[in-house]
Amino acid sequence: MPTHPVAEITSHSTWSFIEDKFSPYAKDLLTKLVDFVQNEVVPAEKLFHAQIPDDARRWQTTPAIVLDLNKRAKALGLWNLFLSKAHYPDVGVPLTNLEYAVMAEVMGRTGHLASLATNCAAPDTGNMEVLARYGTEAQKKEWLAPLMNAEIRSAFSMTEKGVASSDATNIQTSIRKEGNEIVINGHKWWISGAGDPRCKLHLVMGKSDPNNPSKYAQQSIVIVPANTPGVRVIRPMKVMGYDDAPEGHCEVIYENVRVPERNLIAGWGRGFEVIQGRLGPGRIHHCMRSIGLAQRALDIMLERVTDPNRKTFGKHLYQHGTVVANIAKSRAEIEGARLLVLSAAHQIDKVKAKGALKEIGIAKFVVPSMALQVVDRAMQAFGAEGISQDTPLAYWWAGLRTLRYADGPDEVHIQQIGERELKRAPSLRAASEKAKKKETALFEKYGVKARL
Amino acid sequence: MPTHPVAEITSHSTWSFIEDKFSPYAKDLLTKLVDFVQNEVVPAEKLFHAQIPDDARRWQTTPAIVLDLNKRAKALGLWNLFLSKAHYPDVGVPLTNLEYAVMAEVMGRTGHLASLATNCAAPDTGNMEVLARYGTEAQKKEWLAPLMNAEIRSAFSMTEKGVASSDATNIQTSIRKEGNEIVINGHKWWISGAGDPRCKLHLVMGKSDPNNPSKYAQQSIVIVPANTPGVRVIRPMKVMGYDDAPEGHCEVIYENVRVPERNLIAGWGRGFEVIQGRLGPGRIHHCMRSIGLAQRALDIMLERVTDPNRKTFGKHLYQHGTVVANIAKSRAEIEGARLLVLSAAHQIDKVKAKGALKEIGIAKFVVPSMALQVVDRAMQAFGAEGISQDTPLAYWWAGLRTLRYADGPDEVHIQQIGERELKRAPSLRAASEKAKKKETALFEKYGVKARL
Amino acid sequence: MPTHPVAEITSHSTWSFIEDKFSPYAKDLLTKLVDFVQNEVVPAEKLFHAQIPDDARRWQTTPAIVLDLNKRAKALGLWNLFLSKAHYPDVGVPLTNLEYAVMAEVMGRTGHLASLATNCAAPDTGNMEVLARYGTEAQKKEWLAPLMNAEIRSAFSMTEKGVASSDATNIQTSIRKEGNEIVINGHKWWISGAGDPRCKLHLVMGKSDPNNPSKYAQQSIVIVPANTPGVRVIRPMKVMGYDDAPEGHCEVIYENVRVPERNLIAGWGRGFEVIQGRLGPGRIHHCMRSIGLAQRALDIMLERVTDPNRKTFGKHLYQHGTVVANIAKSRAEIEGARLLVLSAAHQIDKVKAKGALKEIGIAKFVVPSMALQVVDRAMQAFGAEGISQDTPLAYWWAGLRTLRYADGPDEVHIQQIGERELKRAPSLRAASEKAKKKETALFEKYGVKARL
Amino acid sequence: MPTHPVAEITSHSTWSFIEDKFSPYAKDLLTKLVDFVQNEVVPAEKLFHAQIPDDARRWQTTPAIVLDLNKRAKALGLWNLFLSKAHYPDVGVPLTNLEYAVMAEVMGRTGHLASLATNCAAPDTGNMEVLARYGTEAQKKEWLAPLMNAEIRSAFSMTEKGVASSDATNIQTSIRKEGNEIVINGHKWWISGAGDPRCKLHLVMGKSDPNNPSKYAQQSIVIVPANTPGVRVIRPMKVMGYDDAPEGHCEVIYENVRVPERNLIAGWGRGFEVIQGRLGPGRIHHCMRSIGLAQRALDIMLERVTDPNRKTFGKHLYQHGTVVANIAKSRAEIEGARLLVLSAAHQIDKVKAKGALKEIGIAKFVVPSMALQVVDRAMQAFGAEGISQDTPLAYWWAGLRTLRYADGPDEVHIQQIGERELKRAPSLRAASEKAKKKETALFEKYGVKARL
Repeated sequence: MPTHPVAEITSHSTWSFIEDKFSPYAKDLLTKLVDFVQNEVVPAEKLFHAQIPDDARRWQTTPAIVLDLNKRAKALGLWNLFLSKAHYPDVGVPLTNLEYAVMAEVMGRTGHLASLATNCAAPDTGNMEVLARYGTEAQKKEWLAPLMNAEIRSAFSMTEKGVASSDATNIQTSIRKEGNEIVINGHKWWISGAGDPRCKLHLVMGKSDPNNPSKYAQQSIVIVPANTPGVRVIRPMKVMGYDDAPEGHCEVIYENVRVPERNLIAGWGRGFEVIQGRLGPGRIHHCMRSIGLAQRALDIMLERVTDPNRKTFGKHLYQHGTVVANIAKSRAEIEGARLLVLSAAHQIDKVKAKGALKEIGIAKFVVPSMALQVVDRAMQAFGAEGISQDTPLAYWWAGLRTLRYADGPDEVHIQQIGERELKRAPSLRAASEKAKKKETALFEKYGVKARL
Repeated sequence: MPTHPVAEITSHSTWSFIEDKFSPYAKDLLTKLVDFVQNEVVPAEKLFHAQIPDDARRWQTTPAIVLDLNKRAKALGLWNLFLSKAHYPDVGVPLTNLEYAVMAEVMGRTGHLASLATNCAAPDTGNMEVLARYGTEAQKKEWLAPLMNAEIRSAFSMTEKGVASSDATNIQTSIRKEGNEIVINGHKWWISGAGDPRCKLHLVMGKSDPNNPSKYAQQSIVIVPANTPGVRVIRPMKVMGYDDAPEGHCEVIYENVRVPERNLIAGWGRGFEVIQGRLGPGRIHHCMRSIGLAQRALDIMLERVTDPNRKTFGKHLYQHGTVVANIAKSRAEIEGARLLVLSAAHQIDKVKAKGALKEIGIAKFVVPSMALQVVDRAMQAFGAEGISQDTPLAYWWAGLRTLRYADGPDEVHIQQIGERELKRAPSLRAASEKAKKKETALFEKYGVKARL
Repeated sequence: MPTHPVAEITSHSTWSFIEDKFSPYAKDLLTKLVDFVQNEVVPAEKLFHAQIPDDARRWQTTPAIVLDLNKRAKALGLWNLFLSKAHYPDVGVPLTNLEYAVMAEVMGRTGHLASLATNCAAPDTGNMEVLARYGTEAQKKEWLAPLMNAEIRSAFSMTEKGVASSDATNIQTSIRKEGNEIVINGHKWWISGAGDPRCKLHLVMGKSDPNNPSKYAQQSIVIVPANTPGVRVIRPMKVMGYDDAPEGHCEVIYENVRVPERNLIAGWGRGFEVIQGRLGPGRIHHCMRSIGLAQRALDIMLERVTDPNRKTFGKHLYQHGTVVANIAKSRAEIEGARLLVLSAAHQIDKVKAKGALKEIGIAKFVVPSMALQVVDRAMQAFGAEGISQDTPLAYWWAGLRTLRYADGPDEVHIQQIGERELKRAPSLRAASEKAKKKETALFEKYGVKARL
Repeated sequence: MPTHPVAEITSHSTWSFIEDKFSPYAKDLLTKLVDFVQNEVVPAEKLFHAQIPDDARRWQTTPAIVLDLNKRAKALGLWNLFLSKAHYPDVGVPLTNLEYAVMAEVMGRTGHLASLATNCAAPDTGNMEVLARYGTEAQKKEWLAPLMNAEIRSAFSMTEKGVASSDATNIQTSIRKEGNEIVINGHKWWISGAGDPRCKLHLVMGKSDPNNPSKYAQQSIVIVPANTPGVRVIRPMKVMGYDDAPEGHCEVIYENVRVPERNLIAGWGRGFEVIQGRLGPGRIHHCMRSIGLAQRALDIMLERVTDPNRKTFGKHLYQHGTVVANIAKSRAEIEGARLLVLSAAHQIDKVKAKGALKEIGIAKFVVPSMALQVVDRAMQAFGAEGISQDTPLAYWWAGLRTLRYADGPDEVHIQQIGERELKRAPSLRAASEKAKKKETALFEKYGVKARL
């Protein structure tokens, strides 16, 4: 049976489970994407890192290979795939969430690079969605168009120092109107992309109406050109020992930053609404990329343990029962997690993100831990090399670890899923009471006394 | 959005993920089944146990409620659903493996009773399949017909004492021809159903040609009427104190048991082939029933922790963060496992069990451990009551625990999946070498030296 | 180096770690106990079970072997070892908690039987301690003396149906004075020993002063002769499928039970105080017995996996890497848990149970889960036999599982340990502030600016 | 009860469990060490990092604070504590392994800095032990004396690229005699300390007699001055992005490196013997330092979760049940692991490292995983800050992760412990057979038939 090439790199059975939900267009695109990632992006991974200098210039660099991969991807039609035609008829690509989720896994195999190559990398993706949905024509022309051409990049500025920002109502940054201008003061960190020399705008979230009785109407979002006076990028936050230059996850201070009022997104007080739309599908994409990484780590582990040159205590690594068991468990965990995320993606397609909150939440707390475990097992199979710069595993692990905090820590999602599940209790209790009555009737009918 | 009633008792998103693979017939049947299980079987659970006496008569009993449920199920068309029309055109039901898998989960919510009620209970199911596929017309008339009417029951006699029977080539029981008769000598145990007063036949597996150079052609299977002289049911094996009367899992000695040669199944030396066919889908059904149990245990746990009468240290149980976390994790684990099994079932539909061995194997080792954990958490929420006869949880746990041995211990399946996965290594290595060459070319093209 | 025989059955290094804390008397006693358990109790285990009938007579039986083992143990001076001379100078044995803890592990290797044999079995142990500490001379003569001779047995009646009894202030049973009599009304369950034909008294806890402003002064404890009118033993609670006859863990109703006022223990309103004293060391003994069981399960597993007759897929069980890993992990987990409990026992010796609540609590939630895991791995090594009546493993597992509820569920102990640990926070914060000031001074002194 | 200050930072009950094994000298030293670490080293931690430049000069630096802490430690007598007087009567400190183990935990609280401050840091410690035990007078004068004064530092050069170096017989580096000189050729990596500008010597392990029939007599160890021609430090290996400058874990090539024959350690062919002596106690020290880190991480977590400024979803972090449970589990795991290591240290004191291989091996695989888990929970409590440069947690995690490979991966130790445990099987089988005979006799004596 000839199979789609994606089945070769993910899972035959999963592919055949979902294949009928793919349009011919999506299948064709996926074929191209698999080929592009395997044959053009994977071979470019090391070069990408080598083109980023080791010294301070690393923050002024755009690796040439990225620009060339951009050209190739555009030529192949592998461009802006994240932007769904269903939501953005003018500029979007006709892919469902399910279809794009599978593409996200394929891209995720290379960590970040394939997403960069195809202009499908966060935080630009979410920012383009915001601009496409809420932007004025002028905003679209000035910012969305060059973003969609990967001529510039952007940052999304929400998380604040010393604030439990997973609860967006805690945000402290001040956004206020002064004449025709908007004045912004705040202290943010973990602002991904703010270090990039090509980053030309920040979407900044803050409180414009802190006394509004509705906690969800206090926030606004403003476009801040990166070179506006008062925008100070303080330092990159490091993830373990990695700084992720040139993008970085930066600490940024906005001090009396002034922009024209036309830079407001959507309208005063609509900040919360705007970010809500960003979250659901974005989490699914994160999850699928993580699954791509986990699958790739398992693949690398398979290569390592079958390396004919490696023997310890007279056995090849793959002859150790615990190694084989780790491989089997990793495979099973990847399969289960992938199906969870795909089913969540499909649920979004059916009933929108709001109807799929449980599925998204489950994926959000299951996948990072799973992927961390799979990558950790692969690291262990490599010995000390696995934690060094000579394999990508340690870097992947560090990146995945941040996902147990990002967009809310695991604990928050677990708590929310638990509470959501508890809402089923009343109907279960009602059904039990009904069954209990029938049970009593049955005992009477059969003249039997209940067993103690 | 009106949903199918199955979505109420399993998972909305899973149902919507697979709904398009269900025929109208299957959907209709499933609706009826959900209603039957919830409204007729669940209320009968305690009565079923109460109708089995506490003393030695428990081995001579058929609870009246079972016979009545049989009548109802037959009237509703909820009968012999396991027997697929695709494989058994004469007698089968037009359900795919995927469709039946969902039905198995629904039945599994009651442990064994719904399967009994609908004549879908092991070991009869596998035996009917064998008779339907390999039986002669005479065999079918004598044994298959009454089994399909639930007039009699049967046992499958394979596992042997002191033998690692998960590897069927280890079987020691002797089956030899003597004139027109077949003579059987062997010592079996864990023979489910052999204790039942309605058990009228054993399918006995043994070695008829122990010197055959092919390990897989040494075995034959024979129909042994339960009342044949020399068939001695020694004792029930207990599962954590439970004897599962009246069926039991019995130790059975076959001492010079003689049956006519026409009782041979399929032909001499075809025993291994016959059992192979039994295993794949059967494992999936076991898995789905286990998931049904896990889901029900979670439902019961939800009722318990929201019981308004229970407070410890000033809090309701559901207000404890660890309780809520356990609920969330249970839900996530059930969802992931269910999708794994359904995708395996679908794979069987697409490429037969032989093409789905990896998926079946993964399901086989993932599901029982998952279900045990979920049930254990539910037990813990009940305090000591959870381990007693006052909830079904402890009994379920014990039954599920056997599935970590049955049809091969977890370790065997994990090892096999690991080895199967290792077979991907050569093609991965080839792809890596190809990528490595491209990588080298890229470094040259861009005039960059590899980073140390 | 000649070692003490206990080192052969537990752990050389642990023994040498604690040996200097053992008196010559205790060493001598321990030597005798190891010999007695290994050579007289272990060989009697199966006989003990065989002497308990399978039918209703199982509740009227005292296995003859128990009486004979009692005689032997008494003759050897292995009698009432739990009763510490330090607390009960008249009747006690000069052993520290640490010394007795090691003895409890040795006894625990046989589950319950060695404790029975040496008159060190719960619930009699706690009851004898109560009577020795709080009993009047008349109470001691009537009840303590025959208990200490193992002529009679007893029950401790605290846990109530539908009540979170791990919080003793929730108890509902009514105990009130009426003239010279005490009248008791209540509904208890899980009353261990109440099924035994030799059980002659219940210590019943209830509320005598439910409106007392102190929650801890509302309870009283009363001696109720088992044959008092109104004492109704309803049924044994089962643990998984085991009823633990003849002792049982029974549901008991006290209906207008009347006893003379002289049967009051310690005084009105002192019930809470009395049970407090029972708990700490008793938990440590439970833990050590569980460790004995875990160690024995590991020993049995070692025998099984080296059984020369067992091969699967061409390998002995002990040649499978995952089996070896399970053995190593089990050993490590047993060692760590044992040291935790011994250090808690020693802490009790040093600062009494009240000063060792953290150590006791940690032992209480760590040990049962550890032991369950070790026993479960052993079960798995046996295949289906491991869950049956042919090894003691399943029975042990069931018994150990109850310890995750008994005397408060794991969750309660985990919560309490966590809260206790949180009390360290203020002093840690103070120390950090102090260090911070020194840090600032150092930066100034060296003229260095803090790294961002 | 006044307690020793160590009890305040580790565990009261552990301290009281081992206190009687401490000499007055050791108690006094420990008091001083606790004070020094808490009041002088902890406040210096950030300064230490700030004194290491961010650019290439980081490899030419010795932070001034280290030199000043050295002076203080020397003045306090907190110097070279690792060197036991029992083994090195001339230069050693009168501490047992158990006593030093506790000191190692105290030092470990600061990661590496307190060890550096007191001249107790690897790899110098092991190298000094080697020189003290096997060095000639000349070697001692030239190298040991300045090492013991912390005037110079050293590297131990064993691990090789592409070689499973945990099995030292796999070493490939060539060491051969040529006239009065020794010529060394080899490719090493993960050579800790080789990057340090103060590193003046490498102890290099290689094969001098590769054809010797004994695998354990092929190796020799040679002192190589760091500035010898042909010694090329290629690059630092990174640990999750950290380079550990100025020490580093370097890749080093030895190309026709020539040293005089007097630089041979101990004698030709004694290399394996020499390293064996380094391993046992060294592993225990690593473990204790890791426990110190874990304990400190828990302390930091306690401070964080009680930070009055942090609330999520209306609750302080310490009010979340799962946070409290994580704290309790961390505490329990630290306690159990610490006792395991201390009991191993004591076993070394009693029967030397060779007699304590099981205990050392258990500690080696239990502690790093435990510490990683505790640190990971602490990271999680900090949100993204926990993985950044603003807490030491991520750096600690990375360092601890290497311990699951260093000195042999977990898998090797687990396998060895399992195999060692399996050696108990024959005596267990013999005991069981003996018990079986007694059992049979008992059944006969009592006239009872065994229960099926």
